[in-house]
Amino acid sequence: MTPGSFITLEGIEGAGKSTLAAALTVMLERRGVDIVRTREPGGTPLAERVRAVVLEPGAEALTPVAEMLLMFAARRIHLDNLVRPALARGACVICDRFTDATRAYQGAGRGVAMQLIDHLASLVHDGLQPSATVLLDLPVADGLARARARRGEPDRFEVEETAFFERVRACYLELAHAEPERFIVLDARRPPQELADEAANALLARLSG
Amino acid sequence: MTPGSFITLEGIEGAGKSTLAAALTVMLERRGVDIVRTREPGGTPLAERVRAVVLEPGAEALTPVAEMLLMFAARRIHLDNLVRPALARGACVICDRFTDATRAYQGAGRGVAMQLIDHLASLVHDGLQPSATVLLDLPVADGLARARARRGEPDRFEVEETAFFERVRACYLELAHAEPERFIVLDARRPPQELADEAANALLARLSG
Repeated sequence: MTPGSFITLEGIEGAGKSTLAAALTVMLERRGVDIVRTREPGGTPLAERVRAVVLEPGAEALTPVAEMLLMFAARRIHLDNLVRPALARGACVICDRFTDATRAYQGAGRGVAMQLIDHLASLVHDGLQPSATVLLDLPVADGLARARARRGEPDRFEVEETAFFERVRACYLELAHAEPERFIVLDARRPPQELADEAANALLARLSG
Repeated sequence: MTPGSFITLEGIEGAGKSTLAAALTVMLERRGVDIVRTREPGGTPLAERVRAVVLEPGAEALTPVAEMLLMFAARRIHLDNLVRPALARGACVICDRFTDATRAYQGAGRGVAMQLIDHLASLVHDGLQPSATVLLDLPVADGLARARARRGEPDRFEVEETAFFERVRACYLELAHAEPERFIVLDARRPPQELADEAANALLARLSG
């Protein structure tokens, strides 16, 4: 795999991103790829503190604009202090969620203007784009059933209604449709090992040479 | 004083904003004004958590863009959950620092583009502007001497060099020059009670009727 590849994983709650990230890391490391596995929001101690502010349900309201600004602040900290240094030394970064999630959740889900998200993305990314993005797609009902089975206290997103996640899913599929050269879309209802094999093969095919 | 007045206090470290905020609160409350005294970044429990991320010096770098995004995120939380509700019920809000501080510190101090700050301000303020702003102006050396005398561990700003605070002070003076109808500029080297009297009189003259 080309050194310095930046791979992002996207999908709704319960799609299996964490499981895929773990499996991909093992499979690619076996092939000698230097992998840094991380997640957003968070990924560094400082950015994880911002994550806690965003996700912990609390007495105090967090309006969509504030939520989006925190997401981009955490992203910039993460890019500055972990992602860019890792890519610069030739590692491949596997990141659970990135700016497509902001488009899907804050944009389509919460109604923040997509133009504003794109403007902030361009500022915060400063030229960096994912080399490839794996979208784990599945029906909302299936994803939520999985997520609810495994979790304790729901976070600020998990308390949302089905209609919210339908908008998130539809946005992800539109993004994938608009950038087929970047996205790899997989049916997340398939067995985890099969998904990991297919994702690894697709990534190696696209990001080698 | 007109109900729903939004008064902001600005100035470099050691200018005496907290002392002035306390004195103004007492003086205006004696005249029957309903005052809510607050500060930025922070002012609500959630926004104070963002403040801690911004101010606490840490091992991890916080680049100017990330710092600015956190400032505006904290500001939006503060406006949504404290400032707007207070103004809506007719209280007058006295706020220690607001967006002029972002222009002075992140813009002039750290070099973030002023156009970008104005763009985010317009998004985050959503039409709200300070009714009046008191700028406590004093030479940087005097302010830093006062600030250093009273403080323990310096925060992410207090560790800056004199040249940084010279840019901050110059920016504040330019902002005041550009908006004389909003700004009240006072020489912060004068005795605190004299400053409070003059600030209270100026605010009552401008914000009554």
